[in-house]
Amino acid sequence: MSSVNPNLSQERSAVQFPIEELTQFILGGPKRTEKKRILRSLVDPNKYPVFTNDDKFFLSRDKYYVRTLEKLKKLIQYKKQYDLDRDDWFYLLSETGDPNVLILHDLLFIPTLEGQLSDEQLQKWLPLAKDYAIFGCYVQTELGHGSNVRRLETTATYIHETDEFDIHCPTFTSIKWWPGALARTSTHAAVFARLIIDGKDYGIHPFIVQLRGENHKPLPGIEIGDIGPKFGFNNIDNGFLRFNHVRIPRDQMFMKFSKVSRDGKYSTPPHAKMAYGTLVAGRVDIIEQASLFLAKVLCIAIRYSIVRKQGNDTIKNPNESTILDYQFQQYRLFNSLSIVYTFHFVRNWMRDSYEINKKQVGDGDISSMADIHAISSGLKALCTELASDAMEDARRACGGHGYSHFSGIPSMIEFYAQYPTVEGENTILYLQTGRYLIKAFENARNGRPTPAALSYIKDTSRILSERSRATTWEELIDPNEQVKALTHRHTRLLAQLISNLEKSSRNHPQGYEGAKSNHMIDIVNVSRAYCYMIIVISSNEGVESIKSSHPNIYPILRTLVNLFFANSVLKYSGEFLLDNYLDSKHIEILESGVKISLEQIRPNAIGLVDAWEFSDNMLSSALGRYDGNVYEALYNWAKKDPLNLAQEKGLLIGYNEVLKDVFNGEYLKEIIKSKL
Amino acid sequence: MSSVNPNLSQERSAVQFPIEELTQFILGGPKRTEKKRILRSLVDPNKYPVFTNDDKFFLSRDKYYVRTLEKLKKLIQYKKQYDLDRDDWFYLLSETGDPNVLILHDLLFIPTLEGQLSDEQLQKWLPLAKDYAIFGCYVQTELGHGSNVRRLETTATYIHETDEFDIHCPTFTSIKWWPGALARTSTHAAVFARLIIDGKDYGIHPFIVQLRGENHKPLPGIEIGDIGPKFGFNNIDNGFLRFNHVRIPRDQMFMKFSKVSRDGKYSTPPHAKMAYGTLVAGRVDIIEQASLFLAKVLCIAIRYSIVRKQGNDTIKNPNESTILDYQFQQYRLFNSLSIVYTFHFVRNWMRDSYEINKKQVGDGDISSMADIHAISSGLKALCTELASDAMEDARRACGGHGYSHFSGIPSMIEFYAQYPTVEGENTILYLQTGRYLIKAFENARNGRPTPAALSYIKDTSRILSERSRATTWEELIDPNEQVKALTHRHTRLLAQLISNLEKSSRNHPQGYEGAKSNHMIDIVNVSRAYCYMIIVISSNEGVESIKSSHPNIYPILRTLVNLFFANSVLKYSGEFLLDNYLDSKHIEILESGVKISLEQIRPNAIGLVDAWEFSDNMLSSALGRYDGNVYEALYNWAKKDPLNLAQEKGLLIGYNEVLKDVFNGEYLKEIIKSKL
Repeated sequence: MSSVNPNLSQERSAVQFPIEELTQFILGGPKRTEKKRILRSLVDPNKYPVFTNDDKFFLSRDKYYVRTLEKLKKLIQYKKQYDLDRDDWFYLLSETGDPNVLILHDLLFIPTLEGQLSDEQLQKWLPLAKDYAIFGCYVQTELGHGSNVRRLETTATYIHETDEFDIHCPTFTSIKWWPGALARTSTHAAVFARLIIDGKDYGIHPFIVQLRGENHKPLPGIEIGDIGPKFGFNNIDNGFLRFNHVRIPRDQMFMKFSKVSRDGKYSTPPHAKMAYGTLVAGRVDIIEQASLFLAKVLCIAIRYSIVRKQGNDTIKNPNESTILDYQFQQYRLFNSLSIVYTFHFVRNWMRDSYEINKKQVGDGDISSMADIHAISSGLKALCTELASDAMEDARRACGGHGYSHFSGIPSMIEFYAQYPTVEGENTILYLQTGRYLIKAFENARNGRPTPAALSYIKDTSRILSERSRATTWEELIDPNEQVKALTHRHTRLLAQLISNLEKSSRNHPQGYEGAKSNHMIDIVNVSRAYCYMIIVISSNEGVESIKSSHPNIYPILRTLVNLFFANSVLKYSGEFLLDNYLDSKHIEILESGVKISLEQIRPNAIGLVDAWEFSDNMLSSALGRYDGNVYEALYNWAKKDPLNLAQEKGLLIGYNEVLKDVFNGEYLKEIIKSKL
Repeated sequence: MSSVNPNLSQERSAVQFPIEELTQFILGGPKRTEKKRILRSLVDPNKYPVFTNDDKFFLSRDKYYVRTLEKLKKLIQYKKQYDLDRDDWFYLLSETGDPNVLILHDLLFIPTLEGQLSDEQLQKWLPLAKDYAIFGCYVQTELGHGSNVRRLETTATYIHETDEFDIHCPTFTSIKWWPGALARTSTHAAVFARLIIDGKDYGIHPFIVQLRGENHKPLPGIEIGDIGPKFGFNNIDNGFLRFNHVRIPRDQMFMKFSKVSRDGKYSTPPHAKMAYGTLVAGRVDIIEQASLFLAKVLCIAIRYSIVRKQGNDTIKNPNESTILDYQFQQYRLFNSLSIVYTFHFVRNWMRDSYEINKKQVGDGDISSMADIHAISSGLKALCTELASDAMEDARRACGGHGYSHFSGIPSMIEFYAQYPTVEGENTILYLQTGRYLIKAFENARNGRPTPAALSYIKDTSRILSERSRATTWEELIDPNEQVKALTHRHTRLLAQLISNLEKSSRNHPQGYEGAKSNHMIDIVNVSRAYCYMIIVISSNEGVESIKSSHPNIYPILRTLVNLFFANSVLKYSGEFLLDNYLDSKHIEILESGVKISLEQIRPNAIGLVDAWEFSDNMLSSALGRYDGNVYEALYNWAKKDPLNLAQEKGLLIGYNEVLKDVFNGEYLKEIIKSKL
């Protein structure tokens, strides 16, 4: 075993806070940390070779899929053997370093069963699903229809005679497209289709449909296939599904809410909003994971930036500098690191808000549902947008080697690239949140009730009249001042939008709604500004709440949250200067505050990424190895490439097939002759 | 053959300018357009099946590489048969839809021979290279050394006794890493190594080294391999190369400039700057290609956005809207389209400047060399940065299907992702340009000569005192006003940087140089602002120069250049508001000007992408097909996936290997039993 790169060792010993304390904070306290370390050992490839990722970049899609199933088999065994809650289970899956089809069954299919089946139906299906006697996927999107669920075309027509539904894809665009774990894994599906009874259309409802029978063969009337290679996620079998009049029993409609009786009578409960739950849960999960996924990429980039040396050498000083010592490298990577930790606080806040609301809804109180829906929509958009962009920026910060798959970063970018789209395309989510803000603003002005989360809107005129009185960095980053600044910006943009909408609606043939379509750019902008405010509020709340409980890690986390704030203001400085909320002096203070923050983070950078305790196997990165032996790893990994193994056996790919002819010139002579 | 999507047909017939005129403008005039259409027909897969890209997303790396060589064979045949200049040749290569190893030989190896071999050496090597009797690659980067070429470690030691150089990799980090066409294709390499004579180090020089001998086997002392899978570019054999005391004759040092004589005497000419040429050429090529690569992605995204429908449906109006009718979709895609056309003018300007300078240098006049070097460095950085980001944004704008490889976009993103890094990492390039600006500013202030390109710097105080007097959109977008605004911003930032550097250097132990290291963020910012100015100057010059020659396409191109300007100001609005060069009224005018521009572009969008005449085979995109039959294409392409072909033959991948055990429950029962 080779020793650890001396630069890394030195950096580790100079970290100014106790890393263990930060690890425990990240992993959820001492007990959870202990348990997670045990879980991590369960997917250690040295003990359980099925979990090795050493050859993952060489696997073809079919082999990669089978590898994933082999991991699945072992993971299910663990799940049965140990007492694993949701948090443990996702930690274990995540530590394998790849997405697993299990997430589709566990994170989408089972929650759909739990959320939408009647108690009676649950008794039948849930044990089967939990025992993996059946395996399910969530089948909603069609070739021609994604975000606009109301327009799905697949039909479920009630057949009185046999008490069945006839599931059918009536058009080409109604072929189901994209569901994960559909093409080869699932036996069953939760299928969203248009309910038709006696010719009347009752809108979209879910149905449980068996897809495969004996020997896993698709049942009659069911055409299933793989949708082909994707940007990432290629070990998962996203599929297509075409129904040709497939019959299912009536009681395979999900009947927790809407119901169809034996005589074809349709009934639906008063609170149709109930179905929101699943949507929101998906977005909360994504918000939760943004900091985790970005942390992995930064762990790689920061470790590599300590090992990698470049430039700054002179004749006097032949030693090159560690690239993390360059201010611009710090600027790129530490700004992204500030996103990681800021989002970690946001994640906790969002999860708590979600759980509280879920409990309230259970008690029949739906008063906060619209708030949670709007906040989770917008936050999902902003978090995935910032995390994606930061990943690509970190890749570029790794220079040439960042372009190699062995850096581990391209596959993370490819995987994460789905997040700005799945569970609600970001623009559509921003617009949803924007509509909620517009409505709240109008309500407040007309004296109608405003959601608690937006109570400040009633103070719009006071907020608009305020100007920052801060004169120092310390005053600017005071938590109240941070919130005040972001609230001011968001409120000003919102007030201006409303005023513009009103002016514009007078001349628009479709009135106010028409005016909105001419102000989409502004609505997205307002919505994004609102989400920045929520992030600054929740991260400041979060970091202040650990001030006394975690005095040793509080200072560095405080610095990171401040840095996120400062960059958020500087990125949109025009919007703060426009009405003189801030002036040029403030901008100068923020710019120098950023530099001071980078200096404070610099000695702690390695601790801030080590604390996550990502295993080398999980990161699958030559650049991000704990021991920092990056060049040896790149070389050794390349040597294992099947292309090189073939060459070592004397197989010169391409030469015999083509190049031989080209180089010996005979081939070319013939061409030239033919030309004459 | 299926007919064209009616929405696309309708849009095409409503375009307000003559598309043919735009095509001729893009492709370089009527004659070149005619020739390029003939060239395009030479890679039509219906006539020459080797050029088909129908199965490219299913090919393993080895098969994909061999396919590339098969294309190479046919392409070389064309090159010998037809009279193709540089422009034709690259057009033909580009039309195949994939990078080809030929670019490494033709674009890097041959120019290195031409630029660095003595006349005598050229007579020997150039005909061989041009006839493809040998195939070469450019071998510079090492495992541990990229941008800092001075620190390369591979040595070339002169051996008096035998009149040879001994090429050797003395350390692990000196293994050559990354060169394209190295791992399997090349017979020879231009190797950059540290020249050592009698123990004295003369710095880095290029040498021509034969890599492979009989039957293409690596020669003794040479270890060659593939560096493994990359983000993109996977049909190209980027390789590593380790020399273990390989001897080459003395006359295989490139001796156009520096020379070593038989008695080991080293001589070098006075103008070491000569070697700049190749570096600059590479950057000019990249600037040239930015608009082309981005245009491909936008062609896909805009065609798809016309075919794709979504939302906006009401009970009254069951038809969904074309997504390109949404303002935010226009905002995303047309802003990027403005980059495409603005960069097209920049590209022409840069190419002209480069050619003029090349001629001057040939005549012994190196007065503009530093300018061209600095401008091409910064522009390369800004162009690749904006193009990369716009590609990813266009992918997201395509929603879920944009994540499929069949959209064609992920592979373009993966390919293009190397550009912010290759031929000079962008941050390093910005810093280079920044240093040139700082020096010019200091020279101007001290009465020393300033490069012609920076003559305005002498007017700094006047520039800083100016404020925009424009009161309307028309006045703001006047070409002189555009240039004035960008010049003001850049000059203000530069003057402020210099003042800060001076203040800071007084307290810095390393003085001015040390102060710079604390201002890297600011230097990059100044440099980027300078490049924005160059873009606005050159694109305005370009579009105005065709006002009378191309009156029919001038208006829409003018709109696109204006849109680029407006967004460039709005993105950095804080920097224009800070010293009141602009005020809040200007910002409002620009914001509404953007919306008006989007409306003007909307009916012409399809014409602006069709005009490039990309073939379907080249785009390899189900979403970007000329006929708009996107859903049929997605389905038909998926059906050809080998995973689906296997399934149709009854092979259920993963089921027999793993899933069978899991689903039948016997396996799980056993686990549960073992747990008890």
